[in-house]
Amino acid sequence: MRLALAQINGTVGDLRGNTRKIIEYLERARGEGANLVAFPELAITGYPPEDLLLKPDFIRENLACLEEIARASRDLIAIVGFVDRAEDLYNAAAVLYDGRLAGVYHKQFLPNYGVFDEDRYYRAGTETPLFVIGGIACGVSICEDIWYPTGPTALQAQAGARLLVNINASPYHRAKRLGRERMLGTRAADNDVIVAYVNLVGGQDELVFDGASAIFDQSGNLVARAKSFAEDLLVADVDLGAVFRARLHDPLLRKIPRPALPVLTLGPLPGPEPPASRTARVEPAPGPLEEVYRALVLGTRDYVGKNRFEAVVIGLSGGIDSSLVAAIAVDALGPQRVVGVWMPSRYSSQGSQDDARRLAENLGIRLLTLPIEGPFRAVLEALEPHFAGLQPNETEENIQARLRGLYLMALSNKFGWLVLTTGNKSEMATGYATLYGDMAGGFAVIKDVFKTLVFALCRDLNARAGREIIPESVLAKPPSAELRPNQKDVDSLPPYDVLDPILQAYVEEDVLPEELVARGAPPDAVERAVRLVERSEYKRRQAPPGVKITPRAFGRDRRLPITNAYRPASVEKGG
Amino acid sequence: MRLALAQINGTVGDLRGNTRKIIEYLERARGEGANLVAFPELAITGYPPEDLLLKPDFIRENLACLEEIARASRDLIAIVGFVDRAEDLYNAAAVLYDGRLAGVYHKQFLPNYGVFDEDRYYRAGTETPLFVIGGIACGVSICEDIWYPTGPTALQAQAGARLLVNINASPYHRAKRLGRERMLGTRAADNDVIVAYVNLVGGQDELVFDGASAIFDQSGNLVARAKSFAEDLLVADVDLGAVFRARLHDPLLRKIPRPALPVLTLGPLPGPEPPASRTARVEPAPGPLEEVYRALVLGTRDYVGKNRFEAVVIGLSGGIDSSLVAAIAVDALGPQRVVGVWMPSRYSSQGSQDDARRLAENLGIRLLTLPIEGPFRAVLEALEPHFAGLQPNETEENIQARLRGLYLMALSNKFGWLVLTTGNKSEMATGYATLYGDMAGGFAVIKDVFKTLVFALCRDLNARAGREIIPESVLAKPPSAELRPNQKDVDSLPPYDVLDPILQAYVEEDVLPEELVARGAPPDAVERAVRLVERSEYKRRQAPPGVKITPRAFGRDRRLPITNAYRPASVEKGG
Repeated sequence: MRLALAQINGTVGDLRGNTRKIIEYLERARGEGANLVAFPELAITGYPPEDLLLKPDFIRENLACLEEIARASRDLIAIVGFVDRAEDLYNAAAVLYDGRLAGVYHKQFLPNYGVFDEDRYYRAGTETPLFVIGGIACGVSICEDIWYPTGPTALQAQAGARLLVNINASPYHRAKRLGRERMLGTRAADNDVIVAYVNLVGGQDELVFDGASAIFDQSGNLVARAKSFAEDLLVADVDLGAVFRARLHDPLLRKIPRPALPVLTLGPLPGPEPPASRTARVEPAPGPLEEVYRALVLGTRDYVGKNRFEAVVIGLSGGIDSSLVAAIAVDALGPQRVVGVWMPSRYSSQGSQDDARRLAENLGIRLLTLPIEGPFRAVLEALEPHFAGLQPNETEENIQARLRGLYLMALSNKFGWLVLTTGNKSEMATGYATLYGDMAGGFAVIKDVFKTLVFALCRDLNARAGREIIPESVLAKPPSAELRPNQKDVDSLPPYDVLDPILQAYVEEDVLPEELVARGAPPDAVERAVRLVERSEYKRRQAPPGVKITPRAFGRDRRLPITNAYRPASVEKGG
Repeated sequence: MRLALAQINGTVGDLRGNTRKIIEYLERARGEGANLVAFPELAITGYPPEDLLLKPDFIRENLACLEEIARASRDLIAIVGFVDRAEDLYNAAAVLYDGRLAGVYHKQFLPNYGVFDEDRYYRAGTETPLFVIGGIACGVSICEDIWYPTGPTALQAQAGARLLVNINASPYHRAKRLGRERMLGTRAADNDVIVAYVNLVGGQDELVFDGASAIFDQSGNLVARAKSFAEDLLVADVDLGAVFRARLHDPLLRKIPRPALPVLTLGPLPGPEPPASRTARVEPAPGPLEEVYRALVLGTRDYVGKNRFEAVVIGLSGGIDSSLVAAIAVDALGPQRVVGVWMPSRYSSQGSQDDARRLAENLGIRLLTLPIEGPFRAVLEALEPHFAGLQPNETEENIQARLRGLYLMALSNKFGWLVLTTGNKSEMATGYATLYGDMAGGFAVIKDVFKTLVFALCRDLNARAGREIIPESVLAKPPSAELRPNQKDVDSLPPYDVLDPILQAYVEEDVLPEELVARGAPPDAVERAVRLVERSEYKRRQAPPGVKITPRAFGRDRRLPITNAYRPASVEKGG
């Protein structure tokens, strides 16, 4: 049997466009001689459609699209994610056979944690059908249905399914693919079954889907893998006879009572008899740093592209954050669509200016210069009567950051460019950023990347390129906001190599401060970090979206009240 | 039996403070001779605690607080909302008797729609116990458990409960109380049972809880009601013997098989024998406009107070929105804690200046003046080389709005004042507002109030005060942003009396554009409104929180993707 996994990059809400793309891939799969082609979870609507699901016309239109796809699906079986409506809504997989909708599977395990809100929209499925095609039983399932060793896919295999097709929209975070492939291989081996895992690819607001669709044989070996972070059609031949032979040697499986599942018997396997089995393609997966970088590139490209911006504009400070964002933007969009702006203040150093210039040269992008001194002086003058006798403090620093934000937004308004912000996760966590200043913009590319990882990504980028993209001087100098004379980040924050592990454990894993100290973190750094995290929620609430690359990003992934008097015990005492 | 409903205003996360308040009310109830006192849903943690629930120390601390409350609960029964932990989390009600935790009820119907995410945190309860106190059966339940005619509270009544205590944290929206009281009265009458409904009161980020706790007799009559929008201890005597007598006359109820529920038998009714029954207090509920106004006042007061701001600052334009926000702030905080700022531009009219002055006088608040002309000129000059040859457009309008935002934030930074923004729901819906400009601030008081309702609230405010608070000239003039010569809102938007009903139906009820036209709305206004709503999601995502007063507010209540290619059919064609 020849399988095709259509790892497509659709757009949420673009029902007609997604449908066109599905039909195009369906025809390519047919051209490759595939007997079955599978598309990702909610391929028709895009994922996640969120409250669009509450609009009846949206559901109706998605059903009309499914009919159109069904008509296009002759000569092969197509598995397509859509929203089913049967007095309630279901996250569903359609089994299209012979040009019609032959069967439907309803997702049973609805995620409602982290970034997911599926209980908000769907009723959970309760039926676990088997589809028998040409006498061979197959199981269809959606995403988390395969995560549980005793879940519906295990039942399908125990009832005789030789092939499990699992369709997904699995948001990326670092190293997630490793655990996923291990789990899928285990499910395949445990049940002596072939697992075909098709994943979505592309960016959608905060989320990136990494693709890397894969097929596992009945021994749990990964035998085919699609590209990461790119559309792909993965075609592979699977030996369903080998599954039967393997089961004859599995004493445990043969003793498990066969569950009685509803069976939908379809006709013969459509499409050509597969020719001599081809060796399947196993795309290499990127290394741990390149993986993050490519997620950021794809997330940025799709946010810009799907929201139809021609170009992006980035304030370049000569620092490492804006340098990385500019490099990502150039990889996402090409240098012609990226504009840098150097906005010096009275505190900007010559070194920073040189670094911003050099970066722009390395990337081949335009660099505008817009000094803020004139408006800064005018603002200080206007405020003077009200601020008389008061010392300069963060207020004056924020005014500078906000004037830069104002410039960038003026360029955005005048030329239609999207402003990319450059704050990293260390800053978002601690609130070391100016609301409406450096936080002003439409997309926060590296908001989920800790500062230490920013450095690592830049070094890796230069190493992979074999040349200097991020100027070496940018990598060498201590981080500074340059909003007052001789300012350094370490004046306000613990050093990043101390801070970041604290933030990672506290923000992403809810590790208690006392536990962090017990693990060896300096108590004062822990206390400062926790206090800053707790008091910055209001800033994060008004931040633009950015690419999630960790298990818990700020945004929909981590939902804390702004009004919140809770403080972990050790901080309460210390504060 | 004497009941006390303790309608308290706690703070999310302030476990110790909430516990002190609960014990204080418990003692007051004891002083009033109550046999039973009930507190709102999640009274210990505050509602909603959101992802604080994922912190194990938070759960542990909440359990320690419950023990402390139990020890303080001698001589009366206390029903207290808390988070129970039993290998999983439950939204729970504790039954405290004789100084100890005697029983627990787990919420069964977990809301996971609108603003609610309870499936994210809790496992649903499955047991429906009866508590027998002094030989009399009572049912305890939480919030939506009483909404369903066949739900757990009906079972409790059918099994013999004469009193149903239902604890709540029910977020306010307009006119919600009416439907709630009707439903509760029906449940009481249907089951010949006394219903004691205790609600939370107070503001928490986007939400306001309106209180208005109430008791319904076995005929469904409302016999006691607590204050709306204020803390209260409602004490009332209920006649449980009358319930039994009524049931002897209910042929239907007597034929329903008695469900077998788990029974927890407690000792005698604690506390004094109630003296001769007192007539219970029925607080009047505010009228439809006053109700909204008081919700806005309470939401503002609590956001400011619970986040520990000393004062607020508001940009006063002389327009109706900022006038209403200033009036609300003064009612919430007193005139000493409210600062107005008049920030004229070259396009500001003398009339607007007079109106801002007059409003400040009427309210008795300070008014600062901060012209934006100097910085505006400096910014235009700096941008001139890049904008050469281009016509002024929205860019220059936004620069003015952003300079005002920058001024307000500078005042906020320097003096610690919270900036209140003044945009209304018509503006939030259509994106008729400047991100980082007039949208810059910590709390958006009227973001859920349509413009036509802004006018109505102002007129009602003046009428109730019996004097001019909002200047008559503000009410009379056509709305204008005054960002270019002779600008009027109607140049950019349909008239508000046409626009608002369209927005209301489209945003809050997902009514289709074609249906709106069929109902008589002008097609061009529908199309414009829908297109503006759909393209403004990115602005709303970065808006500050504000008080929810409608069934569907922007924010956590309405979750739409920013990247979203879906357009309702009639708009797609028209566009």
